[in-house]
Amino acid sequence: MYDIKAWQHVFKLDPAKEISDNDLDALCMSDTDAIMIGGTDNVTEDNVIHLMSRVRRYPLPLVLEISNIESIIPGFDFYFVPTVLNSQDTTYHNGMMHKALKQFGFMVNFDEVVLEGYLVLNPDSKVAKLTQSNTNIDIEDVEAYAQMVNEMYKLPLMYLEYSGQYGDVEKVEAASRLLTNTQLFYGGGITSIEQAREMAQYADTIVVGNIIYDDIKKAIKTVKIKKESNK
Amino acid sequence: MYDIKAWQHVFKLDPAKEISDNDLDALCMSDTDAIMIGGTDNVTEDNVIHLMSRVRRYPLPLVLEISNIESIIPGFDFYFVPTVLNSQDTTYHNGMMHKALKQFGFMVNFDEVVLEGYLVLNPDSKVAKLTQSNTNIDIEDVEAYAQMVNEMYKLPLMYLEYSGQYGDVEKVEAASRLLTNTQLFYGGGITSIEQAREMAQYADTIVVGNIIYDDIKKAIKTVKIKKESNK
Repeated sequence: MYDIKAWQHVFKLDPAKEISDNDLDALCMSDTDAIMIGGTDNVTEDNVIHLMSRVRRYPLPLVLEISNIESIIPGFDFYFVPTVLNSQDTTYHNGMMHKALKQFGFMVNFDEVVLEGYLVLNPDSKVAKLTQSNTNIDIEDVEAYAQMVNEMYKLPLMYLEYSGQYGDVEKVEAASRLLTNTQLFYGGGITSIEQAREMAQYADTIVVGNIIYDDIKKAIKTVKIKKESNK
Repeated sequence: MYDIKAWQHVFKLDPAKEISDNDLDALCMSDTDAIMIGGTDNVTEDNVIHLMSRVRRYPLPLVLEISNIESIIPGFDFYFVPTVLNSQDTTYHNGMMHKALKQFGFMVNFDEVVLEGYLVLNPDSKVAKLTQSNTNIDIEDVEAYAQMVNEMYKLPLMYLEYSGQYGDVEKVEAASRLLTNTQLFYGGGITSIEQAREMAQYADTIVVGNIIYDDIKKAIKTVKIKKESNK
């Protein structure tokens, strides 16, 4: 079994986007700790299976971050299930989860399932609109959510999701201070090794996504934070 | 520290209702495992303090089940915090919790706090209306929620709340089958030792409330389930 706690760097691939074999090879042969497949729009059974089968050639942990019930496919190492803490629609707290468990609960291996306490923080992102998240959140709010995740729900993982926008380092730092047990993931807008380094000061794990599709070389460079932290 | 896991029987007192010293004495000197203070309407700082100070004369574990932020008072052994899984208003999932943590989080001793996965099941109850709970729930729904609590959120406690109505034993049984780690509380409409016995077959802990105010003798008799289970 892979040890998620040890992951410092993850590449997140959007099944709705095209990626060449060369670029995929570069990602999977980099020193990243895991590949996560997930997106917001147009995530389908077909494109998830297709991308999974391409990544499965590489000996890397493979995660499906569940965006909708239709695209849940067996064969991943882990299934990350977001519960969006600042969503104003109960569908994204536990409504979809309830529907999925009612349908598939009997066949789930829960050792592979990780519940993520999600904060959606970029007001302009698709995910913020879809989930009707209240992104008007200050540092004290982030602290309260971090306490909620760490002390009340006691979730294994909290995810600060800036989705396409580089986030507020002070908020990431604030969350990290309060997460004594929960692992902190940061994702959103990392386009350079400098930004990767900045967020990796506070987040246990950084997730690099969009830049993969814009500048694969810059994306690959972000993996360097791993060597630096091992110095 | 008291061991909640060992509790089989709890009396729930509504701070908005009157109870005589004699009746309170009878409850507290019975063999019940704990007293819980909680209600839906008119729960105020004043009536919670008043009732707490009366129950504190007895050497019994005392729980505040939080209904609103205004009535949270220090001095209880435990604070039970409901997250209403079938509410359609995020306020009752984690909205109130977020507000409370933002305000008081820095001073909370989380060892005293227990997050309850709540299912509100009586459509006519005040709590169902207040929380806009979807009470139109079949056995498969209850099973999905039980899996969610036991396997996803991994909460210490699940509470099937029929609030004033005697519940569906099959649903309680269904939840109990799936809760391999989570402790199952049942509350609602228990008015006799027979009903107490029936629900105690499946629930780890039964909560006896309204009958206290209607027929104190019948209420006291429900405590007998404890002796029976120790046979």
